[in-house]
Amino acid sequence: MGSPILERIDAPCDLKPLTYEEMTQVAQEARDTIISVITQRGGHLASNLGVVELTLALHRVFDSPKDKIVWDTTNQLYTHKLVTGRRDEFKNIRLQGGLSGFGEPAESEHDTLCAGHAGTGLSVALGIAQGAVNCDLDSWTIAVVGDGAMTSGSSFEALNNIVHLSPDKMIVVLNDNGMSISENIGFLTNWRKRLITHPQYQAMIRRMTALSKKVPTGELIYQLVKSLNDGIESFILPTMFWNEIGFRYLGPVDGHDFKQLEDTLQQAKQTAGAVPVVHVVTHKGHGYEPAEDDPVKFHQPSSPLGAGSGAPTYSKVFAQTVSRLMRGDEGVVGISAAMLEGTGLKEVRQDFPDRVFDVGIAEQHAVSMAAGMASTGFKPFVSIYSTFLQRAFDQVMHDVCLQNLPVTLIADRAGIVGEDGKTHHGAFDISYLRCLPNAVVAAPTNENDLQHLINTAYRHNGPFAIRIPRGTATGVSLDPALKELPIGKGYMLREGRDVSIFALGKPAGPALQAAEILADFGIDCSVINPLFVKPLDTELLLNAAREIGRIVTVEENVLAGGFGSAVLEVIAEAGLQSVAVHRIGMPDAFVEHGTADAQRHELNLDAEGIVRQVLSAFYPGGQPSSHTPVVAAD
Amino acid sequence: MGSPILERIDAPCDLKPLTYEEMTQVAQEARDTIISVITQRGGHLASNLGVVELTLALHRVFDSPKDKIVWDTTNQLYTHKLVTGRRDEFKNIRLQGGLSGFGEPAESEHDTLCAGHAGTGLSVALGIAQGAVNCDLDSWTIAVVGDGAMTSGSSFEALNNIVHLSPDKMIVVLNDNGMSISENIGFLTNWRKRLITHPQYQAMIRRMTALSKKVPTGELIYQLVKSLNDGIESFILPTMFWNEIGFRYLGPVDGHDFKQLEDTLQQAKQTAGAVPVVHVVTHKGHGYEPAEDDPVKFHQPSSPLGAGSGAPTYSKVFAQTVSRLMRGDEGVVGISAAMLEGTGLKEVRQDFPDRVFDVGIAEQHAVSMAAGMASTGFKPFVSIYSTFLQRAFDQVMHDVCLQNLPVTLIADRAGIVGEDGKTHHGAFDISYLRCLPNAVVAAPTNENDLQHLINTAYRHNGPFAIRIPRGTATGVSLDPALKELPIGKGYMLREGRDVSIFALGKPAGPALQAAEILADFGIDCSVINPLFVKPLDTELLLNAAREIGRIVTVEENVLAGGFGSAVLEVIAEAGLQSVAVHRIGMPDAFVEHGTADAQRHELNLDAEGIVRQVLSAFYPGGQPSSHTPVVAAD
Repeated sequence: MGSPILERIDAPCDLKPLTYEEMTQVAQEARDTIISVITQRGGHLASNLGVVELTLALHRVFDSPKDKIVWDTTNQLYTHKLVTGRRDEFKNIRLQGGLSGFGEPAESEHDTLCAGHAGTGLSVALGIAQGAVNCDLDSWTIAVVGDGAMTSGSSFEALNNIVHLSPDKMIVVLNDNGMSISENIGFLTNWRKRLITHPQYQAMIRRMTALSKKVPTGELIYQLVKSLNDGIESFILPTMFWNEIGFRYLGPVDGHDFKQLEDTLQQAKQTAGAVPVVHVVTHKGHGYEPAEDDPVKFHQPSSPLGAGSGAPTYSKVFAQTVSRLMRGDEGVVGISAAMLEGTGLKEVRQDFPDRVFDVGIAEQHAVSMAAGMASTGFKPFVSIYSTFLQRAFDQVMHDVCLQNLPVTLIADRAGIVGEDGKTHHGAFDISYLRCLPNAVVAAPTNENDLQHLINTAYRHNGPFAIRIPRGTATGVSLDPALKELPIGKGYMLREGRDVSIFALGKPAGPALQAAEILADFGIDCSVINPLFVKPLDTELLLNAAREIGRIVTVEENVLAGGFGSAVLEVIAEAGLQSVAVHRIGMPDAFVEHGTADAQRHELNLDAEGIVRQVLSAFYPGGQPSSHTPVVAAD
Repeated sequence: MGSPILERIDAPCDLKPLTYEEMTQVAQEARDTIISVITQRGGHLASNLGVVELTLALHRVFDSPKDKIVWDTTNQLYTHKLVTGRRDEFKNIRLQGGLSGFGEPAESEHDTLCAGHAGTGLSVALGIAQGAVNCDLDSWTIAVVGDGAMTSGSSFEALNNIVHLSPDKMIVVLNDNGMSISENIGFLTNWRKRLITHPQYQAMIRRMTALSKKVPTGELIYQLVKSLNDGIESFILPTMFWNEIGFRYLGPVDGHDFKQLEDTLQQAKQTAGAVPVVHVVTHKGHGYEPAEDDPVKFHQPSSPLGAGSGAPTYSKVFAQTVSRLMRGDEGVVGISAAMLEGTGLKEVRQDFPDRVFDVGIAEQHAVSMAAGMASTGFKPFVSIYSTFLQRAFDQVMHDVCLQNLPVTLIADRAGIVGEDGKTHHGAFDISYLRCLPNAVVAAPTNENDLQHLINTAYRHNGPFAIRIPRGTATGVSLDPALKELPIGKGYMLREGRDVSIFALGKPAGPALQAAEILADFGIDCSVINPLFVKPLDTELLLNAAREIGRIVTVEENVLAGGFGSAVLEVIAEAGLQSVAVHRIGMPDAFVEHGTADAQRHELNLDAEGIVRQVLSAFYPGGQPSSHTPVVAAD
């Protein structure tokens, strides 16, 4: 290898004069940089290693930012960041104040969108491409979509509309790494498998092309017709699938071969009459053996799953409890949307292969399918990250709550998530779930709460949502027997006379610590685990309101329409006046990346923040002037 | 025609002994009944007339309710209702207390789900079919899906998973009427068009089948290869599309021919190894000329569009204002999801064919595409019914609000919708939109507000949502010039000293009437048009809270997390105590069908209800005892 080249690349245009040999070196340097930073820092390793050459080739064939490269789910932009002027900051990726782990228009004009949810890139790209047509612009729009994201319904809606509008100067690059985050599902996969496993298909295409130039005779014809006879689909259709639906298929291309990549992208630019789909085959983790061998694990190596205190993750406790229910009842099933591993359901599937369903990146379908099963007596548990459950909001309303069916939704990774940042926080689920009739919405403070809530959901004959935080649970011991908890009943964690802190879910721990600190100030706080957002424990709340009169709510959800808002509603409904309610939660802003601890600290969601908030809300003078309740009666 | 037969059909099994001739008579009687009731009563006429024979055939070939027939979007069940024991109640369909216009498990064991949103039927059916496999049940699950619903991403997610799981005893019936609610879009349409317009394809299939039995020779081969040469897709692929993606294609079948229908459905029952897709071609409005000629109009003939007071509908004012903005700015575009007609954008498209996009039943894509356009400087207006905008909640959060892009969302049919009932009320949009950072959320009290809000959204550089009610506006005159309103500022409609009524949107009218009635009780109410839910006019609100101390909020949204909840948040945030807030809105329950007036009456959303609520909340003793404010200071 010659002298380093990457350090001389300050913008994509610097790549253009390089030879293929030099490009291979740049790719190696980019790969080395990514591996060294991400194995320490955490991040999406395997997917980024898979697209090093593709990224570089795109930047050589097109002119960003004039041409717009829209990556579907922008967690694969590490190489892109390295060659668009962010090389020196790369070491601080995903740290507070450092580069985002995703695309970020605020960082660079080369980043189109900050996208963390799969399946929207084709739509966004079509919008840009159609805009360019309307303005008669001479710029290309390239959508780069993984095969996993193709299982998403939103991708399909976009494909459909791309065919309809068929804008000039739009190209779709299908980044086919043979798997979504956990595994591939469905008919696009079938298509790919048949294509890849059929060694003769390229030869066939060549022969067919040749046919167009001569009168058909002899052996070739015989073979061709014989093949038709055998079932034309088995060798001709795979490449035609995309043409059939209205695109122009080019490929497959080796996604780690610069010449093939660039030649085909150039060819795509010459294609007229239909939007070309360039089928690029890449390997997740390419060039780094541990990641190639286990790309699921290396999807995000710093994931806190199983790390930390030795306590299990909430996801794991969910999975173990569902597994326990499954052993006793054949009607219990688990459903995940391409997150078998992350939700803990992977292990459950080993024991119950026919009763755990991974539907792919298809949250909408996951929820409606669960509704279908519930309508005939099953008890489905659907575990989806809170931020992705947003994708199924309408299905939760229409297929589950409206039908009042016993589907349990686990909103995993609810609240603060840390380094993945603003696209991934589970910041809204309380607001969007508690407005739905028939829904029960609960949040455990620890893993023992969780196991009982799961059992309670199992025994409840209607929609039930349980939000659980990312990462390890508290380490409390699990009761041996599962209890059925009274729905809508919370419980007291700490008695106190001056201020009553209602801490929903994860914030219960910091709230208890805060109460200890506040005790040193002479402020005696009660801490309450409401357990349910809906129905709320009005008795517990109204007693606190009447007897103490100073209520603090703490939640890892935006304040707008959140748990604290529900508390205000109950107090207003009861006609109680002279009750002071102070709400602590996530702000009316998207919370940037950083460690979860730093985010909690900044948002007053740690003990110190709760102390500060209680003092400023109720004791602005410092020491409490009085320990008598603000009001004694309504 | 012989003596009436339909009146002897009390359950699907009564259909089984009938001859095809008798079936034709039953179909005619069903059609006559539907036409006579629906042309008076309103409802989905054309789509129901299209599926009379299909419905009857399904009930003859399968055994409901043991076999589950899952209709995607259950607005086509009129014939089904007539033959499942609800004939006598049919005349009261869509009336309060009468039959629902949709499927309703509470009405009949033959109704699987109450579905009013397109695109969830395949998922629900897969859940039921997979459940039957898991329980080893001997029952069929039949999903009946319109071609329009096939453009929905959720349908695609389901197709993908159906191929993967491939449950036994599941059948998909594609009810192909050549159009969704307004028009067909995309590649499934291409597929269908090519199939239908190619008269030779059936002959070709026969010839190909014959080929499998003999050595190929002569003219046939030449033709075949010539066709390959011309592009194999043009005549072979259409029928193979479904086989290619992993189904077993059967059809096309004339959807108005009992024998063809029943033979093919029987054939589907014999199909093994893949889920059969039975392609049934039907004609919307079949048998009723006015509906056949204009099925869009007869989609729902009693729609209040243009009816009533002579005032324009809110949709029309939206469309006219957008059209006006379009004339002045080429960057303004309109996007609809299969609702060009209902949203008023159809007329706008006549003037601006390149700047109004109908993306099909694909709300997710509509919103993300708008985000893409906005990212390059366009100003998209996306009009989607509030209840369907739920489908795009994640895209609104992820592609619009997170990117802070200037996309304006019109949540049409927000609030009470009347006869369409619980699947169609726009009951949640305030709750699910106001929790999103960067979103502006507004609601006009009249069409003049609306035109100015649209102009304000146009001039605002960020996400903007405007919710508008179904039906005619108030009839106020429109200011000739468009104003830019100050964002987050409401205005006083009526001064008053005793109670301050914040009436958001449509309820402003009834609130003003209520204030007049309450004046006769000696209660002097102010009525305020907040105009914005987010940001809320805190100055106006806190002044009222401080000076009057009795606040009433009125909104056509659920109370949980709604506008009144936002009011409580602001008051709590300001640390104001001793303010009594009474909230009026939609309940924590799904509101059944009936007239919109009756629904408003029942929910205290009319003048009388507001009067009653004000009296009971603040003057339980009857006459007001005092006109002094409850509190004068905080």
